Amino acid sequence: MAPDIAPELAPLPPAQDLKLTLESPLVLQSGVTLSPVTLAYQTYGTLNAARSNCVLICHALTGDQYLAGVHPVNGKPGWWDDLVGPGKVIDTNRFFVVCSNVLGGCMGSTGPKEINPATRKPWGLEFPVITIRDMVQAQAKLLDYLGIDKLFCVMGGSMGAMQVLEWANRFPERVFAAVPIAGSYRHSAQNIAFHEVGRQAIMADPDWCHGNYLAENKIPKRGLAVARMAAHITYLSEAALHRKFGRRLQDRETLTYGFDADFQVESYLRYQGSTFVDRFDANSYLYITRAMDYFDLAQENDGILSNAFKGTRVRYCLVSFSSDWLFPTEESRAIVRALNAVAANVSFVEVESDKGHDAFLLDEPDFHQTLQGFIDGSAEICGLPSREIKG
Amino acid sequence: MAPDIAPELAPLPPAQDLKLTLESPLVLQSGVTLSPVTLAYQTYGTLNAARSNCVLICHALTGDQYLAGVHPVNGKPGWWDDLVGPGKVIDTNRFFVVCSNVLGGCMGSTGPKEINPATRKPWGLEFPVITIRDMVQAQAKLLDYLGIDKLFCVMGGSMGAMQVLEWANRFPERVFAAVPIAGSYRHSAQNIAFHEVGRQAIMADPDWCHGNYLAENKIPKRGLAVARMAAHITYLSEAALHRKFGRRLQDRETLTYGFDADFQVESYLRYQGSTFVDRFDANSYLYITRAMDYFDLAQENDGILSNAFKGTRVRYCLVSFSSDWLFPTEESRAIVRALNAVAANVSFVEVESDKGHDAFLLDEPDFHQTLQGFIDGSAEICGLPSREIKG
Repeated sequence: MAPDIAPELAPLPPAQDLKLTLESPLVLQSGVTLSPVTLAYQTYGTLNAARSNCVLICHALTGDQYLAGVHPVNGKPGWWDDLVGPGKVIDTNRFFVVCSNVLGGCMGSTGPKEINPATRKPWGLEFPVITIRDMVQAQAKLLDYLGIDKLFCVMGGSMGAMQVLEWANRFPERVFAAVPIAGSYRHSAQNIAFHEVGRQAIMADPDWCHGNYLAENKIPKRGLAVARMAAHITYLSEAALHRKFGRRLQDRETLTYGFDADFQVESYLRYQGSTFVDRFDANSYLYITRAMDYFDLAQENDGILSNAFKGTRVRYCLVSFSSDWLFPTEESRAIVRALNAVAANVSFVEVESDKGHDAFLLDEPDFHQTLQGFIDGSAEICGLPSREIKG
Repeated sequence: MAPDIAPELAPLPPAQDLKLTLESPLVLQSGVTLSPVTLAYQTYGTLNAARSNCVLICHALTGDQYLAGVHPVNGKPGWWDDLVGPGKVIDTNRFFVVCSNVLGGCMGSTGPKEINPATRKPWGLEFPVITIRDMVQAQAKLLDYLGIDKLFCVMGGSMGAMQVLEWANRFPERVFAAVPIAGSYRHSAQNIAFHEVGRQAIMADPDWCHGNYLAENKIPKRGLAVARMAAHITYLSEAALHRKFGRRLQDRETLTYGFDADFQVESYLRYQGSTFVDRFDANSYLYITRAMDYFDLAQENDGILSNAFKGTRVRYCLVSFSSDWLFPTEESRAIVRALNAVAANVSFVEVESDKGHDAFLLDEPDFHQTLQGFIDGSAEICGLPSREIKG
């Protein structure tokens, strides 16, 4: 599969705003044809001559392509900066790391806040509903463009894990190893319910303007903040909330008998809500949560999950976190069972952590060690050079 | 303690809109003096000559005084109609059951939607923040009025359990037996967080009008519906949601690739939200959730929960439900440990159920049997006549 244009092989500094506009329209899972399709992406490290050292990382609901280094918008470290970089677990001295903003996103890829060429206005709700498969199809075209036939590894947490599973299901010949972290093969009723609350909160905000807020120069800040607050609770475990905040008061000695944020946990949630609206598009939130709700790898394979993996040669490593109640260990275990049923190569680790779903974004030594071991082992089998052990 | 006015001793049909306006102002825990204070209440069954057969039932956040029989507003059975009535577990042929709408509520008791005599407008946010203790103080005055010195039993689930604990802590000499169900001695950080999301959803609705919606002839329906939806998820277990809805579609064969309620669980949640706004006042929701957040029986007893029960002669029966993640079994167990530490008379049952927190409102045979056993045993010790066993 030859690229249309030779990819940039030199290591790239982050935040170069790389963009690819696909040459042909994308036929979505809904049947709708979407054009043009632009993907905003970042790369870290250098593609080797054999083009065999690419690690594709798929981001979660509110993540983006800026996973390592300094994020160009908020100036903070990227969401996986702990893991990705020179000498780190996903070592950019060894691997060529690619991450693209998902289709439907709001960090430069085609999504509801971009301009609809037919109307010359932001897409808004005219944007077609997209799915995890659509996101992955678009990523595959990005890899075509970059001249990468086969990924050494595709990995991601949460919605990223859904993309990983879709990758390994749709393009098994293009994936050597797959690492779905804190994920599921289908969104549960409870998770759909939480997403629906978020969507209703956004749509209840009059400033949402039935999705046309950009054209009307408004932003549904309050609704989006409420959606984020509700979601944020699901990312943490009760134990983590208790440890971080308990019933401690916020900058006061006693209760105020009012509706200010007396408790630290209230203040924290309000902060999470209010900062989120500065970096995320409300309609993107609707579309991406919908894509997650629609994901059901079993249903797409005649209701039998193991059908998704029949004959697979992909090496799998699944990771879950013991206190994750949004994507509980049982969901990963179901995938492991389906993989075992077709005698796939799979390892599985439930990491003990009280940090809840968010653990996949945090400094969890057991998690990092698990990834390191799997990456090193897989690299060896794949014929990639070993990790330099620092003396 | 003689009543000012002789109580009605004959069995009362439900929905007689009984109301008591207290003769003196209520000094709230915040220090604010509230006057006048009216309590709307219902009674079921007949008070015996010794005035010793009264069961006080405390309702939960969105409950009300109409616990048995047909609810006068929605025409449906009361929230504990399964349990309370002639020949039922809480047998109105044996017991005189009293239930009052909590202070701050919206079913006739003094609360933010009632008229503030100082302004002749609805209280709105001028209403003082109330606490669980304030609710219980008001109930105690109702019992004074009814001529009931000592309760045979005080019971309730969820916020009702908080009131039960407060009763047994503040008025141990007025309580023979106490049954806190699916409750806690203090609201957890996670629970405060969920309440804060609900409050922010209400306050984000422009129709809330900073609390003055009644004066402005508006209702913050959308915000209150979102608050209810978020809360409703916490009342059910993941297993219950999976069993009830799974990923089943609502009146359609395939996904619509849109934002309608494709999934049954979405449709159900929307229904829960939209019907709630017809029966509940948004400001009451703010005040009552705040009262729950503020509840901390340990903190009120120098940080040592068992201090709340020192020397108690109250007989306790605690019930939790295995799949309740809002008030998990561990919270009840902490109370049991504190009671054991002061050698109190306590029994505890964790009922196996996959129905989540809502189980305390549902037909759960093990739960009902537990209550029946405790009530019968306590009645015997208390010297009340035994239950008639149907031949």
